[in-house]
Amino acid sequence: MSPLWFQTEVTLRPRPRGFHLITREVQEALPELSRLEVGVLHVFVQHTSAALTLNENASPDVRRDFARYFDRAVPDGAAYFEHTLEGPDDMPAHIKAALLGSSLTLPVRAGRLALGTWQGIYLCELRERGGPRQLVLTAQGQGR
Amino acid sequence: MSPLWFQTEVTLRPRPRGFHLITREVQEALPELSRLEVGVLHVFVQHTSAALTLNENASPDVRRDFARYFDRAVPDGAAYFEHTLEGPDDMPAHIKAALLGSSLTLPVRAGRLALGTWQGIYLCELRERGGPRQLVLTAQGQGR
Amino acid sequence: MSPLWFQTEVTLRPRPRGFHLITREVQEALPELSRLEVGVLHVFVQHTSAALTLNENASPDVRRDFARYFDRAVPDGAAYFEHTLEGPDDMPAHIKAALLGSSLTLPVRAGRLALGTWQGIYLCELRERGGPRQLVLTAQGQGR
Repeated sequence: MSPLWFQTEVTLRPRPRGFHLITREVQEALPELSRLEVGVLHVFVQHTSAALTLNENASPDVRRDFARYFDRAVPDGAAYFEHTLEGPDDMPAHIKAALLGSSLTLPVRAGRLALGTWQGIYLCELRERGGPRQLVLTAQGQGR
Repeated sequence: MSPLWFQTEVTLRPRPRGFHLITREVQEALPELSRLEVGVLHVFVQHTSAALTLNENASPDVRRDFARYFDRAVPDGAAYFEHTLEGPDDMPAHIKAALLGSSLTLPVRAGRLALGTWQGIYLCELRERGGPRQLVLTAQGQGR
Repeated sequence: MSPLWFQTEVTLRPRPRGFHLITREVQEALPELSRLEVGVLHVFVQHTSAALTLNENASPDVRRDFARYFDRAVPDGAAYFEHTLEGPDDMPAHIKAALLGSSLTLPVRAGRLALGTWQGIYLCELRERGGPRQLVLTAQGQGR
């Protein structure tokens, strides 16, 4: 059976600085996932001051603790940063984006993402005013 | 030639908190890798308090230094964590999982993983009692 | 239409410790990308003391700030490291490699990488004298 490929772009609405669950938005943007028996979904963010990660999908306090941790690990306006023209949150956003990563690859099975029970997709908005964020979704696999 | 897809699940036995080499277990779980001339293998952990990374496969002291580093970088029971109900090692486990990542994509060539000489797959067990851990392996490529 | 697979190796010339833009080198090593309508490119570094990440492609000061940040976050010769035989920059290189990651998966559309305007591929050279670095590039997709 010939393989299936699906690719689409999604524009996420502007969100405040922090960590946001977007699992449902990603799934709804690519209903063709249901046509794959076995495959993978690649989720990619086209920005260098936002990131994607997979983590706990139930407790909002986990997402707040992510913000607390990363804001301490990469402090705004650290004295040793040279690239400061775009504001105190810009260079930290670039570094957090590298620590967290700009894409996720997720297994697909029987028409659905094969995530663990507690896994959800986080958009990591690393700037104060990041504006809308652009994703590229690419799914591929064997048809059902 | 039509592409080949293989997908399987692996349950890893419980391991103590720390970094563990699992390259052989992953390879043995998917003997069909030998049928791919060119391809990729995706290794995915279905948990938010364990992670996967690729690193030095020879010296056990490297893996112990990983534990030392990450336990200092994300300390158990840090005062600013709000999500503490599941114990002092829970929130740090979530954050380390995001820093290390929940999946690996590895090139396949001539029926084998095209890793560098010193590269091995680490299971990062980030909890004191993480229990068995579930992996989803998805391989795809051109047949030999 | 049957899927296309392309795989090649690239040897990057030795570079000094730091963060280096290699987007053009990667693209030129795989001109077959132009034959894909929809697909993904996997870029993999076969070393445990170098890494790949995606970040800002315009300002050299961003890349210098990356070096400053990571050299503070994982200091050379930290007293608690046990694996010290290969020099004070060795164990930090392994840890930075795990934080940054050893591969990138990038979307392909209409024969080109579908990167954001400001996204470029960084080779993260984490050792003082890392020597030449080996990449494996694997592209796959639907033909145009």
